[in-house]
Order: sequence, then C-alpha cells, then structure tokens
Amino acid sequence: MIYLDNAATTRRKPQPVIDAVVKAMTTMGNASRGAHDSALEASRAVYETRCKIARLFGCTRPDHVVFTCNSTEALNIAISGTLNDGDHVITTDLEHNSVLRPLYRLEEEGTISLSFVPADQRGQVNYDDFAALIRPETRAIVCTHASNLTGQMIDIARVGALAKERGLLFIVDASQTAGCVPIHMEDMGVDVLCFTGHKGIMGPQGTGGLCIREGIEIRPFKVGGSGVQSYRKEQPEEYPTRLEAGTLNSHGLMGLSAALDFIQEIGLETIAAHERAMMTRFYEGVRGIEGVTVYGDFSSDARTAVVALNIRDYDSGEVSDELSQAYDIATRPGAHCAPRMHRALGTTEQGAVRFSASWFTTREEVDAAIQAVRELAE
Amino acid sequence: MIYLDNAATTRRKPQPVIDAVVKAMTTMGNASRGAHDSALEASRAVYETRCKIARLFGCTRPDHVVFTCNSTEALNIAISGTLNDGDHVITTDLEHNSVLRPLYRLEEEGTISLSFVPADQRGQVNYDDFAALIRPETRAIVCTHASNLTGQMIDIARVGALAKERGLLFIVDASQTAGCVPIHMEDMGVDVLCFTGHKGIMGPQGTGGLCIREGIEIRPFKVGGSGVQSYRKEQPEEYPTRLEAGTLNSHGLMGLSAALDFIQEIGLETIAAHERAMMTRFYEGVRGIEGVTVYGDFSSDARTAVVALNIRDYDSGEVSDELSQAYDIATRPGAHCAPRMHRALGTTEQGAVRFSASWFTTREEVDAAIQAVRELAE
Repeated sequence: MIYLDNAATTRRKPQPVIDAVVKAMTTMGNASRGAHDSALEASRAVYETRCKIARLFGCTRPDHVVFTCNSTEALNIAISGTLNDGDHVITTDLEHNSVLRPLYRLEEEGTISLSFVPADQRGQVNYDDFAALIRPETRAIVCTHASNLTGQMIDIARVGALAKERGLLFIVDASQTAGCVPIHMEDMGVDVLCFTGHKGIMGPQGTGGLCIREGIEIRPFKVGGSGVQSYRKEQPEEYPTRLEAGTLNSHGLMGLSAALDFIQEIGLETIAAHERAMMTRFYEGVRGIEGVTVYGDFSSDARTAVVALNIRDYDSGEVSDELSQAYDIATRPGAHCAPRMHRALGTTEQGAVRFSASWFTTREEVDAAIQAVRELAE
Repeated sequence: MIYLDNAATTRRKPQPVIDAVVKAMTTMGNASRGAHDSALEASRAVYETRCKIARLFGCTRPDHVVFTCNSTEALNIAISGTLNDGDHVITTDLEHNSVLRPLYRLEEEGTISLSFVPADQRGQVNYDDFAALIRPETRAIVCTHASNLTGQMIDIARVGALAKERGLLFIVDASQTAGCVPIHMEDMGVDVLCFTGHKGIMGPQGTGGLCIREGIEIRPFKVGGSGVQSYRKEQPEEYPTRLEAGTLNSHGLMGLSAALDFIQEIGLETIAAHERAMMTRFYEGVRGIEGVTVYGDFSSDARTAVVALNIRDYDSGEVSDELSQAYDIATRPGAHCAPRMHRALGTTEQGAVRFSASWFTTREEVDAAIQAVRELAE
C-alpha cells in the first residue's frame, strides 16, 4: 500500500516506537500508583516523556505537560477550562471541528461570543483581521497552527505577539504540526499548546496532550483518582495531576517517548524538509494536469506536507475509493472535519482528496500517486 | 518480581495482546477516518471490539459501547452527562475517587445532592439502606461493583432490581470486576456500565469505556472531530460517536480485542476461580499471623482477588517498601483513592497494604508473599 494519509495518522511508526510499547506492556506497572519498582519506573519514564515534550515545544515546565488520549481532548480541556461567562473569542475559518465544536458549545450555552478570521479562496488569512476583531471583552485567540485540509500554516508567532501585546490568552492546535514543524511556545507567545502523538510525532494512537505556560490556570475537565491527596474532595491543584484523572496510557506514552527520541536523532528540520520535498514534488507533478484543482496557497513555504485536490467535478469520495482500489493508494476524501474551510474553498459539496506525506514517504510512492491522478483525470 | 498489584494494573498481559498491538501499530490507519483499506480495516476491527465488549457485559447494542482512555473518563461522562439540576444521587462509602470526585463536583456546584450508603467496619453495606435513602427527587444510584481496597463486592443485581422498581438510573463502576467477574447489564438492571481495559481484562493501558443500555441519554462530554456529519455544529447524536471525539486509541483497542478473545478462550469463570483461589490461599496464610490485621469480610464469596492488610501499627507505605526492596514483592500501600472506605475501616492514617492477584499469579508467588508478611510481622 502507498500510504498518503499521514495527516490522519502516520501508519508507519519507527521500529523503536513499537519496541518501546512492547517493553512497556511486558514490564510496566501503573505510573503514580504505588512505590514498587515497576510503578516507580513507570512514573519516572512518564516524567521523562514530559521532559522530552517540554523540550520539543519550548515549554519551560515539564510538570505543565499534561497527557491526554488525543489532541481533541486537550483542546476540550484548554477551551472549556479557561473561558468564562461573557468572554469573546477569536478563532479562524481554518479550524478543525476539534476546535470549532468546543467553541460552538460554549457559544450555544451563552457563555462566550465568537468571531472568525475569514479564510480567502486559497485558504489564507489576513493577519490584520485578528487585531480588527479584538473587542474590550475579547479574552482569547484559539487557532490552529496549520489547516488539516490545505496544509496552510498560520504564523503563530505573529498571532502570539499580538495576543501578548493585547493581553489575550493564546491557545494553539498543533495537531498538524507537532513533530514536523519547529514550535517554541515561549518564543511564539503560546499559552496553551495542544498536540497529538500519533501524527507527525509518529507515536502510538491514544497519546497527546497539552503544554501550559507557567501562570495559566486551567480548570479540571475530568476528575477522579490521582494517586495523591486522596482525601481531598476536589482534584489536586498541581499540574499535571489537576488535569489527569485515572490511569495514564503509559504503554502508549513509552512509544511516544521513543518517537521523540527518533525525531531528536534524525532532526526535526530534516524530517520536515523531507516531507515538504515529497509534497512539493507531488504538487509540481499534479498541478498542471488538466482537470485537477489543487487547493491552498503554494506560493508560501509555510505549509505542512499536505496537498488537497479534486479531479474535475468528480466526488472526492469516489476518487479516493478508486485510488485505493485500483492503485492501492491511501488518501482521505470528504469533509475532513473542517466545515468552514470547505466553505472558503468552495468545496462543501465535493469535499477534497487529501494526500499527506510522512518521513517514510518515498519519491517512488509520490511518483506513483502523480501517475494515478493523471490517469484518473484523463 | 512477584507482582501482586494487579488491582492497579495487570502487569503481565497475554502474549496475543502484545502481538495484536504490534500488528495494529504496523498496519492500521485511523478508524472512521477515510475509506482506504487500512482505515476501513481499523473501523471494522474497532467495531468488532465493541461487539466483544457487548457480549462480555450483556449489552444489547454494540453501537452503545463507547471507548474512552480509562474508566475514570467513562465515569465522568456517565455522571456529568446524565444528572441534572436538583437531582438527588445515592452512592456508597466503597467508592473510588473516580466516582466520588465527579459527584462531589456536581454537589459543590449546587447541581445535585448526595447520600451515602455507609460501609461498616468490615466494609459491608446494608442493602436496606439503598431503599431507605430514596427521596422523591432521587434520580440515580451510582455504585462500584467491588471495593478496590477490600475486594468486597456489591450485589449489583439486587441494587439494579431496586433501581428498576423505583425508576432510578443505575450507573456501575466495574473497574475492579470487568474481566474477572460475570456481569450482565440487562439481567442486572444496569443502565451504564463503566469499565477499564488494563486491569482484569488484561488489555493495554489507555483503554476502557462505557456500555449504555438502549434508551439512556448521555450528553457529550468531549466534542470535536467525528469523521461523520462534519457540517453540524454539534457532536453527532448517534452513539458511539456522540461520546467519542477525536482519534480513538485503536492500537490499544486491538490489544483489548485480543484480551477479550483470551478471556473467552480460557473462560471468565476459570480465570475468576483461579484468582479467588490465589487470594483465598493468601488470606488463609496471613490471617492467623500475630500482628496482622486483614480488612474486609471474608465470610462471603462475593469478593475480588484482593486482600488488604496492615502489620501492627506500621505505616503501610513502609511495609510495602520493605516488601518491594527486601522481597521483590510488588503491592500497593496508602489511601488507594478510597477515602470513605478508609474511614469506615479505621485506616485513614495508616492506609493499608493491598495484595491483588491475576490469572498469572502462582501458588509459589502467593506462598512467598505469605512468608514475607510473616517475617515482617515477627
């Protein structure tokens, strides 16, 4: 199979990731529960993973790295745990439903009001719109680091600088960039960074989390067993326990830890350059094919390794099925959980076929995909 | 290591569980996201796992099996998603903080009022107390199937019959019994059953969920990407999607699936009998040792494979440390996230040392543990 659905999940994981999960599943106890060797080792190994995540994202406090089962949970925690009655929030048309739905829910309940920075037909924002939308009651900017549909990135350092200047909370969805784009929370003015472990980081499914800048208070989302302060009626106040109730997925986290080592070893820039090269090659190969419409702005380098396209007026689902069945090429069609972006691009009905690369994608695979698109368009 | 902390997590997993996780990590796409083979296979395999869980717990609707990262999350979803302003809830002194804290939070917010069925000094409830606590505004009974501290079980069929008779919602925490005690939701009158995958079921950490009886409405907890109905502002209404936002831990779920096959193959009753035999042997071996106090009621068979004890007035943490360091025996000391049960037993200060068996526990291990307790008591 030629797997080009890495923006959904990286199917191929580095071998050390698999080895680490196997090791954890044969030796680990329950982290933060008990003091025998296998529980203590689990606690230490989980803490080391927090340190690695903190280093990757420029988070000053490893104990402010909170693990969740995916970035959706992290975004729910960040959004529902910080916003209050009467707050106004600015977000963008590029967002995934993992940002939109938690915000819509608060809007529907009458807790917050919402404004959107629009995307143009190429999926680009105008940065002046962020400032223009700020009102006296604006409390936060919540935005993605990159569209999951077009790969278009938002310059979060620029938005972060504005947020700092105007005293706004800045929450970033790094689902599409964590592990494949350099991120430094402190330098970029990010207050809460939400990430997933099973995409760019190449770790197991069931991993993800949020990094919290010192001084940012987030209310507990889930509450329950914490292994400490058991006689309190409330969840303990310290991070990460405040936001982590119940047994962690330590088996998965050991895979995440090995994936972070793998990225460190190869170099994030090297990985990013390879992925970009693959998708640039693909873009250059398909852009000129008659009947192919590619979405997004390719004039800028600020992109992840994603190319979304349609062939004539063919239903994106049918094209993706054909790619799978006739060519054994895995892509993702349809709406991509990004309703506002489809409206901006004008692809609400048709959806789009998304091709996305990973570190393991080869030139041969890309060339086969180009050839398949060419044949389908003819 | 002699691992007797299986009530925290079963450290040893059946080999097919590990093999299944490895296979998933090398072949699986993202379940419910896309239509290429590896995504479709993931969707199918996850659905099969729902079917196996439904069969194990007597849940009539596999699509009402919702996966979460642990039972704490399942309990948060069940409790916060069903209770409303003014509801009165009955629970018990046996509960873990994963039940208590979600309930306390709603009580603190002024949403619900709470009553507790008390535990006596042996950790037993009086079943008449459930009925006696019912008021006109009583809406639900939330209770554990077995104390994580003493192993004492609650007869949930009996409580379920009362709940049905009085029209109350019945939510059960099966964290300590799932996979090692027969459970049949329909027969037992359970409306929502919350379970974890990494304890008695012997699956990976990061797995768990809730089974919902047909007709029970639970509001979404997390919201976000669902892979379907992407243009809705709200989370889709159908189970399981209503309660599952974001990418599932399908890697872990494949391990869970293999664990369910393993249980099916050996037979849940066989597993339960072995675990009980191990802990009965342990209990018989330690009960007569001078200076040893065992907690709980051993006159009844309705117990999980747990024995909690103290040696003289020694701090339980120190005893557990000594067991670990001098004998390489893993146990769990302290408060066990069960504050009300410790108050009932009179062990708030001392905590207790918990020994817990699994299918893989041997007689030799149990005998070594008995000998270690004897030596420490002398």
